[in-house]
Parts: sequence; structure tokens; C-alpha cells
Amino acid sequence: MELLPKTLKSIEKANTKAGDEAQKRLDNLTKPPGSLGTLEKIVVQLASIQGNPMPTVGKKVVMVMAGDHGVVEEGVSAFPQEVTPQMVLNFLNHGAAINVLSNYAKAKVVVTDVGVTGNPIIHPNLNNRKIRPGTRNMAKEAAMTEEEAVTALEVGIELVSQEIEEGATLVATGEMGIGNTTPSSAILACFTGKDVKQITGIGTGIDNQTLIKKQQVIKRALEVNQPNPSQPLDVLRKVGGLEIAALTGVILGAAARKIPVIVDGFISTAAALVAYKLNPICRDYILASHLSQEPGHKLMLQEIGLQPMLHLDLRLGEGTGAVLAFSLIEAAVKIIHEMATFDEAGVSTRK
Amino acid sequence: MELLPKTLKSIEKANTKAGDEAQKRLDNLTKPPGSLGTLEKIVVQLASIQGNPMPTVGKKVVMVMAGDHGVVEEGVSAFPQEVTPQMVLNFLNHGAAINVLSNYAKAKVVVTDVGVTGNPIIHPNLNNRKIRPGTRNMAKEAAMTEEEAVTALEVGIELVSQEIEEGATLVATGEMGIGNTTPSSAILACFTGKDVKQITGIGTGIDNQTLIKKQQVIKRALEVNQPNPSQPLDVLRKVGGLEIAALTGVILGAAARKIPVIVDGFISTAAALVAYKLNPICRDYILASHLSQEPGHKLMLQEIGLQPMLHLDLRLGEGTGAVLAFSLIEAAVKIIHEMATFDEAGVSTRK
Repeated sequence: MELLPKTLKSIEKANTKAGDEAQKRLDNLTKPPGSLGTLEKIVVQLASIQGNPMPTVGKKVVMVMAGDHGVVEEGVSAFPQEVTPQMVLNFLNHGAAINVLSNYAKAKVVVTDVGVTGNPIIHPNLNNRKIRPGTRNMAKEAAMTEEEAVTALEVGIELVSQEIEEGATLVATGEMGIGNTTPSSAILACFTGKDVKQITGIGTGIDNQTLIKKQQVIKRALEVNQPNPSQPLDVLRKVGGLEIAALTGVILGAAARKIPVIVDGFISTAAALVAYKLNPICRDYILASHLSQEPGHKLMLQEIGLQPMLHLDLRLGEGTGAVLAFSLIEAAVKIIHEMATFDEAGVSTRK
Repeated sequence: MELLPKTLKSIEKANTKAGDEAQKRLDNLTKPPGSLGTLEKIVVQLASIQGNPMPTVGKKVVMVMAGDHGVVEEGVSAFPQEVTPQMVLNFLNHGAAINVLSNYAKAKVVVTDVGVTGNPIIHPNLNNRKIRPGTRNMAKEAAMTEEEAVTALEVGIELVSQEIEEGATLVATGEMGIGNTTPSSAILACFTGKDVKQITGIGTGIDNQTLIKKQQVIKRALEVNQPNPSQPLDVLRKVGGLEIAALTGVILGAAARKIPVIVDGFISTAAALVAYKLNPICRDYILASHLSQEPGHKLMLQEIGLQPMLHLDLRLGEGTGAVLAFSLIEAAVKIIHEMATFDEAGVSTRK
């Protein structure tokens, strides 16, 4: 229980001087200033994070955290809970979307069980860091004790630190957990005070009747638990999830070690929102990958101050959108290294 | 003057049966149906185009068409006209953004001069197909004769056909031409009847005073030339450009040969709009890459019925956004080939 406060304290603002120098070079390349839009912003952000006006990208990793949710007993998901361990095994056997996209992006997939229900998952490549088999049903009581939530956070910090020590230069967040759009909407509702109806969507694809039930369940969870939005840990433990907490840890751990972290969709962004509330400086290290189909995702990104690059109507999670964004980030970095300057190319500048 | 009508006539609807089969397989992969959003739509579109439920992507090419614009004498651009040939040379010397991004995406860059002003550009890798040194000033007269416009269209058809014969499986459009957002806005205004003010932007970065002048110039061009929106060729020749016409040809030529074509930003989409008006079936073969900063781009995409994948605030052109989308298309295709089915992975389906 020492790692979390230590990590929160060690997050420093990114080095904007290196970012300014990167922008100066970008403005001298053969294109109108600013015309590469977000690609330029990515370069400047990476330069600031790395403290290097010529940032680089090496090893990439996606941290996939898996956990179950007691609240699924309320009937809020389209898929049965057994799908969580089945999909974890699918990740480990390279059969899922995240494997295919990570393989294409040449990124490593790190799969961790922080709270899956059912029989133990036996696989040499699984990190078994199960804290408990699923959270408690938040519609009836707090999803986690404070100790459980902090332990999950610290698993995220620890595992991302290990990957960074082994050379990761770019981290993506991913998750698996049947029912986990429900706690994500609850977290968003608690922090923003927005109407649950407006920010709760169909997740993996529930029908309209189930959607109405899901909204009622979220309202009940907020009423029963009364999470305090000025205490992010209280929100996380009462209406969050083990995999969400672990991803919050991944984001804080990456920020503390000055490594950029790409957040995926709705659930990953809920983790990022908790991280941002715990220490707003961590935003310097976060990039948003895509805007998901979940109706609350846009608001959630705005709440942190993030702009998504991809509009692909994804609603899968696993880290799929974040891993797709790897290629945009790598391409952006190539720009500052490989483009000619106006002088080098003999191109005239503005009139 | 035979190639254009022949090409227009030979464009056939894509094979939706193959697309339906692809969707059936996608629905059987270990993810909620439809949860990969646009990635699934890309796979289905490519399956329909290739008439193959398991589509593939091989060689990629970006066709960069360069031309100048007589209308720049009205003072509508932030950069002097000499930048067009300078940038063409920069493309040929691998110093521009399009080179860096194409190199990253492993795509071939084909650079063609269809109407650049100034001294001849001498380079072994340049396609010299100059029709005339820049268009006429559309604020005073028609930018091109019908013959000039058709010749430019046919250069596009011819050159893309050559690339396809040499194995290109995916084509992107790109352009260079100082002043070419001006004809693009004029084309959009003519086809939609929308207020010029709403759909005219700062291009490469003009100030507010120049923006007002640019809007007046576009209005004058439409008044002087009275292009007929029910005759797309009339619109193209009177208020278009040589590089825009050539790109219209690239799009039609790719569609006629059943090859998907990724359109870049505002100018490329203007070319796609003309192609769509000439033969709406060509839309089956078009994918939109990104939403640019130009205020008219969204409307232009809607007019054709296209959804952009990337929101990167780009305003550079050259094909940069289209080439960034190559990685998304390749990743989408990997999904259908490499993901496990529910059966293979032993994952439960919906309740």
C-alpha cells in the first residue's frame, strides 16, 4: 500500500521546452505550419514526455487487464459471465481481435487476470494476479474494499513498470470483463453529475429493455453507495472494477516513468478519468486513440481534455482502438525525423 | 477522347454477395457482432469490390497529381505559385510529408505533372503529362476547355490503369497545386448550392482579410462561368483544376478496374464528388480517409455518402491522410483472416 502514494507523488509535468523545440523544427519542414494537425501535436507531446525534441518510438506493449463484475447478476450484459475467462484464454492463444491488431502493429500483448470468476485459467503467458473472483454487486454494496482497489491499482503500476524496465516506449491500455461498461458509466455519472440515461449505452449489444434495466441498476448503485466525487478512490472502489483499477494503475505508472500511454475506448477512458482525478498532471502522458460508439465516451474524453484520433465506431475494448493508433504515432514520429526543411528542399516559405 | 466514356460505361456495381459472405464470417469471429464498426465495413466493402469474401491487400500506390491555378493571380493563397514545382521536386527527392508517410506505409508514390507553371521539372521519376501551364483564371473565364479537362481526366485513368496492371491493389489520391482549395470550394458550392462563406476555409493558412477575398473570388467565378451542376464535366472544366480532373480520372479508372480507392482531403474529395456525379456507382469503390480542417469537407463527404475514419485536423493534402488510412485497411483485412471463430476458441455466444 506504499506504491500508489509514491507513484502519485512522483508524476512530474512533461518537459514543454523539448516540445517547443520540436514544434520549431516542425514549423521549418516543407509544409504549411500546423498543417499536419494532430500528427504535430503527437510529436510535440512525445518530445515533451521524453524531454527530447526528436522523440523516438521503440517497443510497444498493450496491457490487457481482465476482471469480472458482481453486478452482472442484475442482467445488464448481452453475454454470459463465462465469456470473460474464455476470452482471456482466447487472448493467450492469439485468437482475439487484440492479438491480430497487435501482431499487425508489432506490439506485445500482456494479459493479466486481476479478478476473473470461475476455474483458474492455466496458461504460461498469463499473469495471475487475481485479487478476488469478480467484484461484489455494486447495486447492493461497494464493488470493492479500499484495500482491494488499491491492490488492483498497484498491480497495474507494478506490471507496467516491469514492461518499461524491459524497454517499452509506448503503452496501450486494454481490458476484458463482461459487464464492464456498467461500472464505467457509473464512474462517469458520479464525476460529472450527468444524467445516467444520456451516458449509458448498449455495451456489447443489449436490447432496449435491458438498456433501461442497466440504467436503473447504475442509478441504484450510485444511490446505495453514495460515492464521493471529490475522493476518486472512493468512486473507484464503490462503483468501479478490478480491471478498471488495474488500468488506472497502468496509466499512473506509465506517467510516473515518463512513458506515453494510449487509452482505448469507454472502459479504458473510465480508468484514465480516475487517474486524472487522482493526479491531473498524468494527462501530460495520455493520448486518446478513438471515439467509441458508447454515448458517454465523448463526454468522458472531454472531461479529461482529450481528443480522439480515430472515428471507427468501435465498441469492442481489449485495447483494439489503442493498438490501431500505434501506427499513427509511429508515422507522426517519422515526420520530424525524415521530412526535409524548406532550406534543404529549396522551397519558398509564405508570402 | 474515347477513354472517358468507355471508362464511365464500364463501372459495375460491386459484388454484394461476396460482401454478405464476409459479414457472415465476421459475425462468427470472437467479438460481439458489429463491434469492430468501420473495420468490419471496410472488410465487407473490399470483399464486395474484389468479389472475394476473404479480401486481401497487396501493393499500395498513391497517385499525386500536380497542377497550377490561374486564379492565384487574385491573391487567394498564403504561398507563392512557385511552391508548386518546388514541392513536386521535393516529392521526387523524397523530402515531403507524403514521402515519409508512404515510406512508413510501404506505398509507392507516383508523381505526375498535369499542369504546373514555370520551367519544366526535370526528373527521371516524374510523369510529365503537362496539359497546359496552369488553368486560366476562373474569376474571369472558364478554367479549362472541355478538351483540356477531358485530357486531364484521361491522364488519370491511364496512369492508374498502368499501376493496377503492375499490381496495385489499393490506390490513394494525392495532389499539389497552390490555390487548389479555391476551385474545390467552387465545385462544392456549385453542386450543393450552399453559401460560399460556409464552405470556404483558410487552405494552407490565409488571414481573415484574404479569406474574405477568396470567398468573393469564388462567388465571382460562379457568376462569370455559370457552371451547370447537372453537367459535372461543365462544372469541372469551368471552376475545377487540372490536378482535380486527373484525380477524378484516377477514381473512375480504379472503379472501372474494381480496385478500391482511398480519397484524401478537401481537394481529393472534390475530385471524388465530380466522379460520383459523373457515375454514382463509382462510390462502391471509394473509401474516405480523414476529415480535414476545411469547413466544407464534412458536407462534401456527406454529399457522396462517405464517412471519414481519421479525425486529425490535417490540411496538407498530398495524399497524406489517405496514406495514413492504409494501415487501418490492412489491419481490417487481417481481422477476417486471422481471428478465431467462437467455435475454434470455445467462446460462448450471446445469451
